[in-house]
Amino acid sequence: MTHAASPPVPDGAHITICEVGPRDGFQIESTFIPTDKKIAIINALFAAGLRAMQVTSFVSPRAVPQLADAEAVLAGIDRPKGALITALIPNLKGAERAAACGVDAVHTVVSASETHNRKNVNRPIDASLKDFEAVCDLMLQKGIMVEGGIATAFGCPFEGVVPPEQVARIAKRYQDLGATAVGLGDTTGMATPATVRAAVQAIRAEAPGLGIGLHFHNTRGVGLACVMAGLAEGVTHYDASVGGLGGCPFAAGATGNICTEDLVYLLNESGYDTGVDLDAMITAAKLAQDIIGRELPGQVIKSGPRLRRYDPGLTATAAG
Amino acid sequence: MTHAASPPVPDGAHITICEVGPRDGFQIESTFIPTDKKIAIINALFAAGLRAMQVTSFVSPRAVPQLADAEAVLAGIDRPKGALITALIPNLKGAERAAACGVDAVHTVVSASETHNRKNVNRPIDASLKDFEAVCDLMLQKGIMVEGGIATAFGCPFEGVVPPEQVARIAKRYQDLGATAVGLGDTTGMATPATVRAAVQAIRAEAPGLGIGLHFHNTRGVGLACVMAGLAEGVTHYDASVGGLGGCPFAAGATGNICTEDLVYLLNESGYDTGVDLDAMITAAKLAQDIIGRELPGQVIKSGPRLRRYDPGLTATAAG
Repeated sequence: MTHAASPPVPDGAHITICEVGPRDGFQIESTFIPTDKKIAIINALFAAGLRAMQVTSFVSPRAVPQLADAEAVLAGIDRPKGALITALIPNLKGAERAAACGVDAVHTVVSASETHNRKNVNRPIDASLKDFEAVCDLMLQKGIMVEGGIATAFGCPFEGVVPPEQVARIAKRYQDLGATAVGLGDTTGMATPATVRAAVQAIRAEAPGLGIGLHFHNTRGVGLACVMAGLAEGVTHYDASVGGLGGCPFAAGATGNICTEDLVYLLNESGYDTGVDLDAMITAAKLAQDIIGRELPGQVIKSGPRLRRYDPGLTATAAG
Repeated sequence: MTHAASPPVPDGAHITICEVGPRDGFQIESTFIPTDKKIAIINALFAAGLRAMQVTSFVSPRAVPQLADAEAVLAGIDRPKGALITALIPNLKGAERAAACGVDAVHTVVSASETHNRKNVNRPIDASLKDFEAVCDLMLQKGIMVEGGIATAFGCPFEGVVPPEQVARIAKRYQDLGATAVGLGDTTGMATPATVRAAVQAIRAEAPGLGIGLHFHNTRGVGLACVMAGLAEGVTHYDASVGGLGGCPFAAGATGNICTEDLVYLLNESGYDTGVDLDAMITAAKLAQDIIGRELPGQVIKSGPRLRRYDPGLTATAAG
């Protein structure tokens, strides 16, 4: 089944970049990043102009010890005027913890693949969605927005193809529960321009008016090509991770989330308004790289801005 | 000055991928790759279904010792039926050597930036183009096609912005000399979707009927996003390098050319006809990686094809 395409994002429009490195990136690092270092990276990211950030996750500290300091991080960071502070929450308990920290939005997660959801949270998709009823009620009562995360939205490492209609059905259910937007997670890096197009069009047909955010991993190198596909479909919200932090549990050695500074470079050079200063973003990425202590996969962190100029006294090499 | 856009490449169309790793990649490796190893990689690439390849370069062996075995490589490789065998040539002497080896096409190079051309070949752009008159005459007489390479077509590390009209002027001159196509080289990784669009439109306006090939480097992470921009402008010819071999002399640590197997993955998954089998392409990339002896920047070589399936007995991790 195919659906109608939407008009592309107009020239010069504002694009929201939601920084997810402090959650999706920090959580898979093998060592615990000290709380004050996390706060330093987050504040540098805000200083670069980012105004949406998934700061942490209120999961069990036993399950994800790297983010056991969620409360302390949220208490310690700058919160620029107009910033949207979000946190991932798996359940009602996480929602209550997040609310107590004064977040602006929570990000829930259910997988679009039945097998993946059972593996991830040990329950069927519909049971996960049923659990979110109480979460959404509480959040709306407290004036906290809900973003409904849909993992494996572009494919599942166990089931393979995930039908766009299945993604749209979950999106509609989230809308009915009061979510303002859904976030389509490319959990194991299977998104392609074709699957992005199909998922976005199916959601627009099933749940008109629902916001759509796209969360790509660069596992197979096509993360920014998928952003191009999203822009062509009119999507204005993209998650990205400083330095390209993050990873995919099924592709050892492959890169993680699309890289924030590479995305900023692409969008700024395409004339969109991101509000992010690339030089300051590179500074933040270098700080993250220094703290984490390994080379991050981002490219602009190595190559610098486009119009970086070189002294013609340098030697050029055979062209290509 | 803006020009009209062309229609996008239609669904299912054939896209030519020209493999340039054996030239653009091998030439910057610090050690000489033995001739028989070069031939093994090239033959694996043909076996994967590639049918256009820039096999070597007929430059001075003193300038580029890594490709001093150009004749031996061309004599030793398989030449599948219908394959287009090309070589880079800097001048008439190189053209004569290439012709003696029975190539199907030669690829010349002039920079679109005056400063870069002087640095690269120690002469003004117009002198370089003048020199190509004799080259083109000889090649056409021998029935060998000429592809006019235009380096720094999307920006220059010394001059910064390169006007699309300058690229179009050189393209027109190449067309007048008898070239069938131009190849726009993203020499130092400055191409963006906007500059791709501008250059392609300017050439189409100035030199209608001239073929256009796009040669991107992934120096700033947006190489495949630029391919998306090229496809949207109707361009059906892209250079790429096995494993992402190659580099940029002005961005230490950044990646080189866009990676062939990542490009094949993107195009095959988008429904285009590349003629390349991804699994066989990954096999060729792994061979290149083993021979070269370092991890190559390509992603699909690490993550495998999209529908690679995992045993649900494996542990999933927190979604994202």
